[in-house]
Amino acid sequence: MAERMTTREQDFSAWYLDIIQHAKLADYSPVKGCMVIRPNGYAIWEKIQKTLDGMFKDTGHSNAYFPLLIPESFIKREAEHVEGFAPELAVVTRAGGKELEESYVVRPTSETIINSMFSKWVQSYRDLPLLINQWANVMRWELRTRPFLRTTEFLWQEGHTCHETEEGAMEETMKMLHVYREFAEEYLAIPVVCGRKTDSERFAGAVETFCIEALMQDGRALQAGTSHYLGQNFARAFGTEFQTKDGNLDFVHQTSWGVSTRLVGALIMAHSDDKGLVIPPRLAPIHVVIIPIGKGDGREAVVKHSKMLADKIRSWPAQKAGLGGPIAVVVDDDDTKSPGWKFNEWEVKGVPIRIELGPKDLAKDQAVLARRDIGEKEAVALNDVAAKVVDLLASVQESLYARAVKFREDHTTDVESYDEFKAVLDKKGGFVRAHWDGTAETEAAIKEETKATIRCIPLDAAEEEGVCIKTRAPSKRKIFFARAY
Amino acid sequence: MAERMTTREQDFSAWYLDIIQHAKLADYSPVKGCMVIRPNGYAIWEKIQKTLDGMFKDTGHSNAYFPLLIPESFIKREAEHVEGFAPELAVVTRAGGKELEESYVVRPTSETIINSMFSKWVQSYRDLPLLINQWANVMRWELRTRPFLRTTEFLWQEGHTCHETEEGAMEETMKMLHVYREFAEEYLAIPVVCGRKTDSERFAGAVETFCIEALMQDGRALQAGTSHYLGQNFARAFGTEFQTKDGNLDFVHQTSWGVSTRLVGALIMAHSDDKGLVIPPRLAPIHVVIIPIGKGDGREAVVKHSKMLADKIRSWPAQKAGLGGPIAVVVDDDDTKSPGWKFNEWEVKGVPIRIELGPKDLAKDQAVLARRDIGEKEAVALNDVAAKVVDLLASVQESLYARAVKFREDHTTDVESYDEFKAVLDKKGGFVRAHWDGTAETEAAIKEETKATIRCIPLDAAEEEGVCIKTRAPSKRKIFFARAY
Repeated sequence: MAERMTTREQDFSAWYLDIIQHAKLADYSPVKGCMVIRPNGYAIWEKIQKTLDGMFKDTGHSNAYFPLLIPESFIKREAEHVEGFAPELAVVTRAGGKELEESYVVRPTSETIINSMFSKWVQSYRDLPLLINQWANVMRWELRTRPFLRTTEFLWQEGHTCHETEEGAMEETMKMLHVYREFAEEYLAIPVVCGRKTDSERFAGAVETFCIEALMQDGRALQAGTSHYLGQNFARAFGTEFQTKDGNLDFVHQTSWGVSTRLVGALIMAHSDDKGLVIPPRLAPIHVVIIPIGKGDGREAVVKHSKMLADKIRSWPAQKAGLGGPIAVVVDDDDTKSPGWKFNEWEVKGVPIRIELGPKDLAKDQAVLARRDIGEKEAVALNDVAAKVVDLLASVQESLYARAVKFREDHTTDVESYDEFKAVLDKKGGFVRAHWDGTAETEAAIKEETKATIRCIPLDAAEEEGVCIKTRAPSKRKIFFARAY
Repeated sequence: MAERMTTREQDFSAWYLDIIQHAKLADYSPVKGCMVIRPNGYAIWEKIQKTLDGMFKDTGHSNAYFPLLIPESFIKREAEHVEGFAPELAVVTRAGGKELEESYVVRPTSETIINSMFSKWVQSYRDLPLLINQWANVMRWELRTRPFLRTTEFLWQEGHTCHETEEGAMEETMKMLHVYREFAEEYLAIPVVCGRKTDSERFAGAVETFCIEALMQDGRALQAGTSHYLGQNFARAFGTEFQTKDGNLDFVHQTSWGVSTRLVGALIMAHSDDKGLVIPPRLAPIHVVIIPIGKGDGREAVVKHSKMLADKIRSWPAQKAGLGGPIAVVVDDDDTKSPGWKFNEWEVKGVPIRIELGPKDLAKDQAVLARRDIGEKEAVALNDVAAKVVDLLASVQESLYARAVKFREDHTTDVESYDEFKAVLDKKGGFVRAHWDGTAETEAAIKEETKATIRCIPLDAAEEEGVCIKTRAPSKRKIFFARAY
């Protein structure tokens, strides 16, 4: 911990990696492009999983598990799908001591293997909608990797659903996009833009891809979740047919949607500061650390009261803070470390509230509460600490979100010309709202020249006549560009 | 559902597969030896996971995640380990469109990759004990597979811990064995024998393997969990060294322990009957199904009261039933199916309690409660139903366990001669307690001739002078043999 971290100002990318090392969130592994998720990082992922899993179940989905390996021929059945994923596949060619007759790919996503099962399970409209989710590891052989943001193997969930009608499938696509938005805003405390991807950024095999786009503190965008309307593409490739209410046969209409361990990277880059990690309370594995202060005679009483206080906070009604359970409290009474060392360590780890309790505090019947996000300290009467903690946790969650909203507002710029566009990207980054002529050529040229991509065509984009910043061709609405992760 | 299931008497193995199909627990996949875990089966696995995860955390363990792929050279570093696992490995030789310079194996277990990280993380005795668990998929290329019991890919947890001393590691090995025993007995409702494996059944790379052994209704044994004392074998192979309190360097002393989706198979084969699945309440995804009876005029009132009753049961204090949460209730008010069809369907699925509510019951201010395990029905005043459900759930859990204990008692036989041994195996199966001379040769000969294996040398085996059933050589204690899965 004595080692200093890089600051965001000095080098944002090095700062990000420093946070991950210092807070022990992840480590590099001996496997190319794969990270190890350490307990501190995995605990955040567990909170994310638990919350999302509840939201999926509340919207009628059930979990299931499909094989890791996919026959290579399956991947090839949907033409766009194989084109998109072929360069990134890891392939098992040998097993049980023999060369395999047909190789298997390690799943990069599971539309194909899942459709091979759906085609057995779905016979009639009475079997629909079929609403399945899977928590799993997937593998995409990436060349440039970065912990949490882009790794060869990652953990994710993938929802896969079948519907009677196009409308039913599109409704599901949008419903899950909004579940992701709600999760991002209310738990991750990150505002997101909901929109549609352009054809060139569409999921390989989908008819339409929708996404939530977040903004990081360096002004770069991050795609934080996607929801795909698959139409009947995979159903046709795998024969997922059903008897309709009027007795005909039709292919099911499908969706798929996913978020991954990338969200941990989003959380880090949206909220953390030069002292270390900052975790929104609703996703924090530990909410409060109590640090008994002082040595010698007074210490025993201070440690005893710290533990009593911890128990009181744990059993205090905390619904108001929306944690989905009791407040998690740790008493750090390790007497081989100084309070200063501990303050630093728990700040690096991002615990939302620190409570200091020393003999002088005890004498005054108070404790000192410090917020991790803004560093504010306050003395609170011991009797009021538990209630105050609940208030503070709710307040930290809100203010992290408000700060992120403010940051996004400050970093969303409307431009009318290509020069202005480039200047904004270079000077402050962020989202740039601009007119685009709607062609893939212009999109590619802008990306080539500025490294900015179209993040999405926002769902709520108002009609607004204008001309494309690059070609001056007419355009009907502004869309979101950014340099992105 | 109209299709009849095979009975246990007719063909136990076919009955087992029928239960899995009829209750929609799993399905065959197009990938050799891999199954798909369907929502009904996965929901049971989720309950198992949640319960065990809590027990692991209560004993101080943290979850983490390590890479799926392991460099082939790592597997070879521990001589016994590679010998044990080489024949079962699946190997990735191609990735990102290229042949790899070094192949990766898909993890069959993670001691090697985890030690490559532990050797970075552990420096000093202050870093110990290191108590890690991982929930993951693993792959072992098995020739003969059977859903849940033995599949090429399976889901499991693997605990991996490092300790300062041999004693510390051995204490952990036994602690986790007893966590498994507690889980088996108190949640799965299956009594288990705790014991040590013989050398020939030891985990490849361990110094000692301990296990819990359960008995299925066909009299065959099932290894339901293992806890390994690894000594310093992997630590030496990967250089996992630490500075001791007195300033020397030593290799850490390690353990690993795991249970898998095989437990779902154990649950099925221990408790289910010819009508379908029977699930112990503490692991049941749904505890109660309410079936409104009757058509026409009375139906609306019956459905309304069924829903009110469901809400009341859901909010009733259920601590006494030890479910770890509220009672899960479903109201099956689908009016396209008859009550008889529904009774059958929910019996097949193993829901512990069925409540029937018809117009006549309403008139009498009662409902009829039926237990899945013994089929007993009872009319209960509406006001008392919620409390009665809690009692019944506790009672079903207890009586399933008592029945399994009774079955095991009836199917554990002491023998003194080899003829007796063979006769018992053929006539009633079960555990056979017999003297053994302690040699691998005798163990192999008995296995070859009778298909029975040594399940374990029980921890609580009393000293008892005798002679080996096969060689008549002296022996100091009886051990457990059985034909096993």
